[in-house]
Amino acid sequence: MKRSIATVSLSGLLSDKLEAIAAAGFDGLEIFDNDLIASPLTPREVAQRCAELGLTIDLFQPVRDVEGVPPDRFDAVLHRFRVKLGVMAELGATTVLCCSNVARDAVDDPDLSAAQLARLGDLAAEQGATIAYEALAWGRHVHRVGQAWEIVQRADHPAVTLAVDTFHMLARGDDGTALAGVPGGRIGFLQVADAPLLDMDVLEWSRHFRCFPGEGMLDVAGVVGACVEAGYDGPVSLEVFSDVVREADPHVTARDAMRSLLHLEDQAPPAPSRVDPAFLEVPGSPAITGLLGSLGFSVAGRHRTKPVTWWRNGGAHVVVNDGSPDPALGVVASPVPAVAARAKALLWPEVDRTRGAGEAHLPGITSPSGLHVFVSAPEGEDDDWQQDFTPEPAGGDWTGIDHVAIAVPAERLNEEVSFLRTLFDLAPGAVEEFMEPHGRLRSRAFRPSAGHLRVVLNVEDSSRGPATGITQVAFACPDVRAAVRAMRDAGVVLMPVPDNYYVDLEARFGLSPEALADLRSHGLLYDRAGDGELLHAFTAPLPTGFHVEVLERSGGYDGYGSASTHVRLAAQRV
Amino acid sequence: MKRSIATVSLSGLLSDKLEAIAAAGFDGLEIFDNDLIASPLTPREVAQRCAELGLTIDLFQPVRDVEGVPPDRFDAVLHRFRVKLGVMAELGATTVLCCSNVARDAVDDPDLSAAQLARLGDLAAEQGATIAYEALAWGRHVHRVGQAWEIVQRADHPAVTLAVDTFHMLARGDDGTALAGVPGGRIGFLQVADAPLLDMDVLEWSRHFRCFPGEGMLDVAGVVGACVEAGYDGPVSLEVFSDVVREADPHVTARDAMRSLLHLEDQAPPAPSRVDPAFLEVPGSPAITGLLGSLGFSVAGRHRTKPVTWWRNGGAHVVVNDGSPDPALGVVASPVPAVAARAKALLWPEVDRTRGAGEAHLPGITSPSGLHVFVSAPEGEDDDWQQDFTPEPAGGDWTGIDHVAIAVPAERLNEEVSFLRTLFDLAPGAVEEFMEPHGRLRSRAFRPSAGHLRVVLNVEDSSRGPATGITQVAFACPDVRAAVRAMRDAGVVLMPVPDNYYVDLEARFGLSPEALADLRSHGLLYDRAGDGELLHAFTAPLPTGFHVEVLERSGGYDGYGSASTHVRLAAQRV
Repeated sequence: MKRSIATVSLSGLLSDKLEAIAAAGFDGLEIFDNDLIASPLTPREVAQRCAELGLTIDLFQPVRDVEGVPPDRFDAVLHRFRVKLGVMAELGATTVLCCSNVARDAVDDPDLSAAQLARLGDLAAEQGATIAYEALAWGRHVHRVGQAWEIVQRADHPAVTLAVDTFHMLARGDDGTALAGVPGGRIGFLQVADAPLLDMDVLEWSRHFRCFPGEGMLDVAGVVGACVEAGYDGPVSLEVFSDVVREADPHVTARDAMRSLLHLEDQAPPAPSRVDPAFLEVPGSPAITGLLGSLGFSVAGRHRTKPVTWWRNGGAHVVVNDGSPDPALGVVASPVPAVAARAKALLWPEVDRTRGAGEAHLPGITSPSGLHVFVSAPEGEDDDWQQDFTPEPAGGDWTGIDHVAIAVPAERLNEEVSFLRTLFDLAPGAVEEFMEPHGRLRSRAFRPSAGHLRVVLNVEDSSRGPATGITQVAFACPDVRAAVRAMRDAGVVLMPVPDNYYVDLEARFGLSPEALADLRSHGLLYDRAGDGELLHAFTAPLPTGFHVEVLERSGGYDGYGSASTHVRLAAQRV
Repeated sequence: MKRSIATVSLSGLLSDKLEAIAAAGFDGLEIFDNDLIASPLTPREVAQRCAELGLTIDLFQPVRDVEGVPPDRFDAVLHRFRVKLGVMAELGATTVLCCSNVARDAVDDPDLSAAQLARLGDLAAEQGATIAYEALAWGRHVHRVGQAWEIVQRADHPAVTLAVDTFHMLARGDDGTALAGVPGGRIGFLQVADAPLLDMDVLEWSRHFRCFPGEGMLDVAGVVGACVEAGYDGPVSLEVFSDVVREADPHVTARDAMRSLLHLEDQAPPAPSRVDPAFLEVPGSPAITGLLGSLGFSVAGRHRTKPVTWWRNGGAHVVVNDGSPDPALGVVASPVPAVAARAKALLWPEVDRTRGAGEAHLPGITSPSGLHVFVSAPEGEDDDWQQDFTPEPAGGDWTGIDHVAIAVPAERLNEEVSFLRTLFDLAPGAVEEFMEPHGRLRSRAFRPSAGHLRVVLNVEDSSRGPATGITQVAFACPDVRAAVRAMRDAGVVLMPVPDNYYVDLEARFGLSPEALADLRSHGLLYDRAGDGELLHAFTAPLPTGFHVEVLERSGGYDGYGSASTHVRLAAQRV
């Protein structure tokens, strides 16, 4: 598969873009006409620069509104197309993207469009060039790939081929099956882009929210697979623009882009079949050891070579690392070497750690937002993280880590989603949005198809500036009331719950006076869905930089208590 | 008109919101239930605080999903409603907003909805309260005001009234005529909000993009007028939430909110009937006097008392103020005292300036983004700004200031739009959007119904950080080629135009080789629309902090050369 990317996918000036594309290891690129127009480099200079960088110019794009044109104005189109063919000749480009007409006066006549494309095909063929004709999702009359293919067939010209663009197809509800019967040799170009599912004008959606394959929710792989199956063997080229990439460093974007193609090619070692939480790692401090003691944790082991202590409350593990400045997450995902190899193949960067001889080599991967994730084998197997420690007896009855919440800067969200999805095959839930006193919080939970890991990504838009990193860790308890009482006895200050909240609970759920009094006295938040119930409580703001939640799920409750989130946010952000 | 605002319109905690609402001079407020639920204040404490602040609680809102409920689950609704009535009694609130059902299992049966509302009306009436029933624009079955009114009529209950919300009505395409036949006494509450026109899911539109009346494009005044005409004499209450206000200082938001109601009431002195550019004021520096000389300006007068010099090139005036740190804009809008009084009535803040005795008192108003705008009478009349100066002879043939571009932080855009619209009655053009190398630029031009003032507001989202204030001033010239030649002769460096741009011009417009050579040699950008043409050129980045554009319009060309903007942005932001 030849890997290509459109210059419009990157920020900066054309010369910066060429450098970044080459540095990320692409084979070729699409030249976006406006990038060329605004550049002081002549087309010949651009061609020479690309050659020096080892990049082929796979496409010149776009030439707009060239078919379905009122016949009396087609001469102007021919003139325009001739000039652009001249530019292409200087670039050494032989494929040109022509997209479906968006003009108000476009004529709805497939035969006219076909005849006009064939006429342009004659001009292209004169210099050995080929037209790839694309149905823009917002084309005036031609907006689905089937219509474009029909027109290409009617044009019946060797220099007039079909351009396939995953965004335009999937945005209109088509999938790979829409390409049934299209011979691969008649597909002139394949552009790929993903997007989150948003209910908005498709042009605005396209302009502001495209993302790289694996970051959104469209079945990009299905369309690419259909093209490959049909025999298409040309470049697979990323055409992604969004408000985020427009402001990003082009070198970072180009590396993300390359990663998304590697993931799309599906050549990396497979993702782990199940993922469970292993431990939370936190920087050592008197505050943290005091807190852990108050939460009923006790020391369960000491690291054989490093100033690292393993604390435990039943199945919940916390590793206190005196040498680490930030919290990190340990997960169980095996086989560990395959996960490490997958991370490497997908260009996710390793955590740099020096380890002692004879210790389990725990691979660590740094997420785009800076979170370190360490990968361990299940308890007792080779590569089990616990083997690094000399164990000590420890008690407690907590079940384990229920979930971890990670605050991510808005401009890093797509990449962080890609990290969780491509590396660990976690599946995203719906985006939830909450008002907080000084802004808003967007939240999305991720879970594996098997295993108990739950990660919640939060993006905060707040006048107080965003939090980053691990902001909350939730522990599952068999008896949250007992946990709350024990914490209080140990001096832990819990987040105060306003009495109005319990009045609202009564209104919503019709709880008995006894049940309400019980919740009030324990300072518990409550939620119910079907037969499932959630009881949970939060600590008041801690000097550790993250909140602790204790919770008890019952009856298959699977959420996070969203209905109470606004109360928590108000209480935590006073 | 009683002025009210919903607590959900402001950021912060409930107690902060009450302070801000009182400080801005509102008569009353709506208590948003979630604000109360998250507050440590009991309802009685909230009521007492409001009384101390001189605020009445005009509405408790919302109680959701109370009608069209499957009958077997209506008991739970009654329970919920009773609890909320108890809260209202403690608040001392007597009107409750019930909005149309959004649940998936809502029943599409107006008679059922009416009967259920009547039943709730019985409960409300027991404590002297009234229900105001609102058609949410995204209600499951009831989403237009006409449907809600039909249900209120069928409920036929004195305690069940209609809630009118301008956003929900106008978002669904209704206007004031949809209220024909509704007696004012049956309207239980009136909520007002504006919004820009956006083609997106209406719930998302509502949640993220509402704005205060006068900041958006909806005919809020038409709906309010229809209510008043029908005899409604209750509160007019702002319910505005958006990503912007959620992060703003609640005191600033409350003042903007109050201003929007004052504008809606239309009691201020009228807006000027025409507005023209008077002058650009710039801080004094050797760079600026050097530049003005190179642009063909010469000294036309000296201020009678201050270190201020008036420069002129024909009809284009620049005032160099050695005592001012930032550029400012002078406009001709008369009668000046009425404009000043209008600014004051609408709470737009005065510029603080000390003036000498016997000088024309030039009122200055500070826009939300910090721009100072000075208001003058036409030449030769009382309050003409030129009377402050001892004139000197000056030449030049430039026509005048064509337009001024002002960069505004994104979070200030709504307010800046409000400033131009409410004070000067300028009308906004369409929003245009441009990619620039390191982000994007959103741009909107404003013009008066009569007069030559043109102001362009720009919002830049860029990794390089936003520019602010006056970023560009465009002068109209009778012969832009001559202007360019003279500027070059005087050593002004013009923005370089890439040769590729002219190749594209040839493709688009089929210009003759002579015409292209002429444009190339003068470094001019070109645009054409119908019979109109624009020729323009820009200076290279200047130490003055803003660019100078020289332009020549012909044949009624009315735009700003948008098709070339991406080239300019690339050249200016290298």
